[in-house]
Amino acid sequence: MATRQPGPGEFEIIRRFFAPLAADAPGAFGLTDDAAALEVPPGHSLVVTSDALVAGVHFLATDTAADVAAKALRVNLSDLASMGARPVAYTLALALTRETGVEWLEAFAASLAADQERFGIHLIGGDTVATPGPLTLCICAFGRVASGTELRRSGARPGDAVFVTGTIGDAALGLIALQKGLAGVDTADCEALVTRYRRPIPRTVCGPRLVGLAHAAIDVSDGLLADLGHICETSEVAAVIEADRVPLSAAAQAALAAGAGGWGDILSGGDDYELLFTAAADAEPDLTAISKALNVPITRIGRIVERTFADRPDRLVGVVDAAGRPLVLETSGYRHF
Amino acid sequence: MATRQPGPGEFEIIRRFFAPLAADAPGAFGLTDDAAALEVPPGHSLVVTSDALVAGVHFLATDTAADVAAKALRVNLSDLASMGARPVAYTLALALTRETGVEWLEAFAASLAADQERFGIHLIGGDTVATPGPLTLCICAFGRVASGTELRRSGARPGDAVFVTGTIGDAALGLIALQKGLAGVDTADCEALVTRYRRPIPRTVCGPRLVGLAHAAIDVSDGLLADLGHICETSEVAAVIEADRVPLSAAAQAALAAGAGGWGDILSGGDDYELLFTAAADAEPDLTAISKALNVPITRIGRIVERTFADRPDRLVGVVDAAGRPLVLETSGYRHF
Repeated sequence: MATRQPGPGEFEIIRRFFAPLAADAPGAFGLTDDAAALEVPPGHSLVVTSDALVAGVHFLATDTAADVAAKALRVNLSDLASMGARPVAYTLALALTRETGVEWLEAFAASLAADQERFGIHLIGGDTVATPGPLTLCICAFGRVASGTELRRSGARPGDAVFVTGTIGDAALGLIALQKGLAGVDTADCEALVTRYRRPIPRTVCGPRLVGLAHAAIDVSDGLLADLGHICETSEVAAVIEADRVPLSAAAQAALAAGAGGWGDILSGGDDYELLFTAAADAEPDLTAISKALNVPITRIGRIVERTFADRPDRLVGVVDAAGRPLVLETSGYRHF
Repeated sequence: MATRQPGPGEFEIIRRFFAPLAADAPGAFGLTDDAAALEVPPGHSLVVTSDALVAGVHFLATDTAADVAAKALRVNLSDLASMGARPVAYTLALALTRETGVEWLEAFAASLAADQERFGIHLIGGDTVATPGPLTLCICAFGRVASGTELRRSGARPGDAVFVTGTIGDAALGLIALQKGLAGVDTADCEALVTRYRRPIPRTVCGPRLVGLAHAAIDVSDGLLADLGHICETSEVAAVIEADRVPLSAAAQAALAAGAGGWGDILSGGDDYELLFTAAADAEPDLTAISKALNVPITRIGRIVERTFADRPDRLVGVVDAAGRPLVLETSGYRHF
């Protein structure tokens, strides 16, 4: 019943483009079996995450095959990192359209190969099917962590400090740059922001280093405020962040200065794939040491507080200015009360 | 950038329909975290399989939500069974269309719940997204097997007997019944065949019992001849099957007798999800005992032979009649040389 796209069929696609990506993974059996076998060292858990991406919904039709491959793999690696897990392997299910040609598959597989090398992960299985709809991918990624030490969203405690890696808001501004441009921002800055949107860098090394230090962790995919809200909801706490402490790239600062993007874009925009976590306030020296060792910025941006009776579920995260005065987020920025 | 279908949003869908499916899985964290944690007992491997299904390609637009759920999960369970692995858990990535309503989701989740109970498996994670294209699902299923004992396609040896569970051809005939009808076949037989197509029964208990007995195994998804061809290709052998020994259901026999389906449909049609495996000829008494204990028919249908120089890759599986005379498969049946 399955219809096939013209050009190479399913088995040929697997043999030619995907089997080489599984060549170094012992349990992948060269992708010639019904399933793969994954060894988990004693005392470790396997961390499993799955993300689906649809063309036109989760990536732009103008994104290259290399961008799509990188984004699909990296958003999953970011989920592993936010659990404190080291990447091990992944499966790829790919629904190809009739228009997907050999060049696209070649560039897609080459991009995966480069990321496998970079992040230390191998393809171990998957599925290739045809779809009359938009190209759709589903990656399931596996990582490992010492049993019981995985980072959760639920461990934040009042008194914790809130930290974030890297810089925030770049991906949201990059998407604006692609969709309607950033007036008054120079080309190099625009390109830097677009690259952050198209090629997030999952914190695969930093995440596992936070095990034992972080009380709760998540990756910034829905937006800083929304994701901190997820931690607060699951941990039954609330949070306050200081807008002035939120780390911005030079390009994001330029966009803000030009009025081409606002604080609303930065704090509510998604797709940064930085780690957002809470830890005891006295963990800061340890975190500074990790930051220096890995050359990954880690910035304290706020604190976890008790949830009060008055906190509405959608108001668990407050934002204040440097003087501690509450800011109210509007569509395109903040205003004081 | 993600667009949402009308009705419940992603978080609400997860909370309402999918979190209950994960309630009994300790590492699923109620689907409130970025990933799940899976424990693997010492000395065991995790077997991982992934299948994607697209509406209109892998299932019919007229299939119910309950049928779609059952088929998506069961084809993955069948892959685990063919590796000799016991089902443990699965993830579900679901790309929903704007038309997917609450009733569909309710029936879909209820069907998964029933199958979880039946096959002893739990949802541990996944993703829910919107698609402008056809409804698309990707399930990644996990099973466990004692390390190094997983059944592979590559272990068939000349002299092995070839066995198959259950009956063959029912699903292909069921699909014909749905698409153009089976003239001269009564309603009850047609319904039995359609049920085999819509609700395959993965051999999840039988598969693990074959560990230590089967030399090579696969599930019948592409068709008996194609799947035995996969074993031959990977094992570098050839095979001969006796058409008269291939086990047929009463309904399939009725369809053959009425001329509504041919041997070509039976031997080349897919979707039966029976186990096809090779074992030493003297393993037959052990297999008979398993068959009786589990009430699962196991039938010897042929043998593995040396591959000769003349064997073309697409001619690794020969079919003979009861007298040993070669049959040549045509579109709708067999003819003698």
